[in-house]
Amino acid sequence: MKTCLLHARTFARLRPRLKGLDAAVRFVTIDDAGKAHDGWTSTALADLPPLDMAFGSSDAFFAPSVREFMTGLLKSPSLDWFQSAAAGIENPALVMIGQKVKHYTTNHTQAESMAEWALWQALDFLRAGPAHRAQQAAGQWQRVKAREIRGSRWLVVGYGSIGEAVGRRVTALGGEVTGIRRSPGPATGAARIVPPSALMAELPGADVVLLCSPHTPETENMANAAFFAAMQPEALFMNLGRGALVDEDALIAALDAGRPAFAALDVTRTEPLPPDSPLWRHPGIAITPHDSSDTPGTVAGADETFLANLTRYLQGEPLKHLVDRAAFVSG
Amino acid sequence: MKTCLLHARTFARLRPRLKGLDAAVRFVTIDDAGKAHDGWTSTALADLPPLDMAFGSSDAFFAPSVREFMTGLLKSPSLDWFQSAAAGIENPALVMIGQKVKHYTTNHTQAESMAEWALWQALDFLRAGPAHRAQQAAGQWQRVKAREIRGSRWLVVGYGSIGEAVGRRVTALGGEVTGIRRSPGPATGAARIVPPSALMAELPGADVVLLCSPHTPETENMANAAFFAAMQPEALFMNLGRGALVDEDALIAALDAGRPAFAALDVTRTEPLPPDSPLWRHPGIAITPHDSSDTPGTVAGADETFLANLTRYLQGEPLKHLVDRAAFVSG
Repeated sequence: MKTCLLHARTFARLRPRLKGLDAAVRFVTIDDAGKAHDGWTSTALADLPPLDMAFGSSDAFFAPSVREFMTGLLKSPSLDWFQSAAAGIENPALVMIGQKVKHYTTNHTQAESMAEWALWQALDFLRAGPAHRAQQAAGQWQRVKAREIRGSRWLVVGYGSIGEAVGRRVTALGGEVTGIRRSPGPATGAARIVPPSALMAELPGADVVLLCSPHTPETENMANAAFFAAMQPEALFMNLGRGALVDEDALIAALDAGRPAFAALDVTRTEPLPPDSPLWRHPGIAITPHDSSDTPGTVAGADETFLANLTRYLQGEPLKHLVDRAAFVSG
Repeated sequence: MKTCLLHARTFARLRPRLKGLDAAVRFVTIDDAGKAHDGWTSTALADLPPLDMAFGSSDAFFAPSVREFMTGLLKSPSLDWFQSAAAGIENPALVMIGQKVKHYTTNHTQAESMAEWALWQALDFLRAGPAHRAQQAAGQWQRVKAREIRGSRWLVVGYGSIGEAVGRRVTALGGEVTGIRRSPGPATGAARIVPPSALMAELPGADVVLLCSPHTPETENMANAAFFAAMQPEALFMNLGRGALVDEDALIAALDAGRPAFAALDVTRTEPLPPDSPLWRHPGIAITPHDSSDTPGTVAGADETFLANLTRYLQGEPLKHLVDRAAFVSG
């Protein structure tokens, strides 16, 4: 009998799908208040028992009890498998789990929701959303020239699962996508893949520039004054990666100088973004609070990833979306 | 030698593509001020000569000189072909031309831009655009639950060229499209086609309801109190067809009652919408001033339709997108 930790809401949602596993898996739940229960019997538990596996769903990650959840994992002597609902592995708590657990699996279904965020922001820019809303507020009926994704040229910096999810959509809508990625060769949704060294040469040809890169020493402040100066005045800059990819002072200066035309940011260098940040009130910036993946579709996708891997785990088959332990070594 | 009327800007833009036709076609231009010129020689003309054909581009339709343009056509004794940049044929001036001209051809390339408008409005609703913008204005960092086009169910009422352009896109993004159309059988971009009699039965199952119908006695006030009462409380209502399809008082009452959740309108019953209309300032309504087709892509598409038909015309081949003269008989 293996013991698996789930957030209480996650267990309640998945319970119908877990029927028949009562002989194989003891599910232990933790609720928002940090109280532990036995899943099948609802018996209250004074403490979390030693755990073999856990599903870090978004219920767990965004619960007030996230610390208790993580502590339960870290103090288990033989943690065997951790399924994350997140794609990223940079969060310090996740790094600690990655260093401890035998099998760490990640999840890429949030890429779909994030890709729709990119379409939303691009369409709101190309269709002149701010100008239309200002006209509506003033009761003014005057046609505004708009542009289309069809025929637009996109540069996606960091062409992984999120980049591909964006690329597939933009290509289907008639746009042309160039992806920047270390490994060469074809990729779904991109007309061309170029290496990171081509970045500065590619920027001037893009109508939309989207960052999807992880934060590494190489990508820190990648979007700096020279980067923005190489963009077109009419272009849109978007960041779905990490806030540290962007020199935010350089971005504000670039927008004020008229190149690029607009920026849409789902991530910022400091999160939550402080109330006094000039980013909030800049007319050329749209900010969302790192919630581009926050949809029912993402929750359902992560659930499916966990359930499929749980079946594989119990049948002794290789897990999908395994992360190499070396990724966690240096933190 | 045939004589063809173009707006001056349209001729200037197309001139490189018209080279070689100087022996076959005399192009006459009319500018924003209503002044006529010979296209090839730029000679000013006191009056428009009798015309054989004309291209009603968006330059012509939205010029201050649109009346002079139309009058030039209507007083020509043997007008043979009129190429419209619009899909619709309901405008009274277009009906008069349709009743007079031998060959009237329409254009469907504006459907692409209009379909992107529908994606824009749907994404801004599903991603909680208004809530995100209110938070940004207040400097508040708080995740907002959003929804996706992926997995959403669309009901497109009037599944013609615009409906198909929407349907292709929504299907590519993972949504499910039902089209309402008189003629049965399969259609691009729709999982199902149902007849107009199924409207009320289909409304409760839709996350997004989009009107693309023309204005006829049957479609007048189609979206009335009963229509809105059949929609889901969380659903989006959009109108890309004609303002007269919607009972606007019923729409406001329905939004106030919480069903549907939001409305996006590119057309209104009275256009321009009067400054004192309650539609302008309703928090559940987004209004655009009938400009969903107003993109460079639409202009380019209409130009291509004209040029292709011009080649066919001069070679005596059948024109594409011909409208049956019977369509203009009753006005």
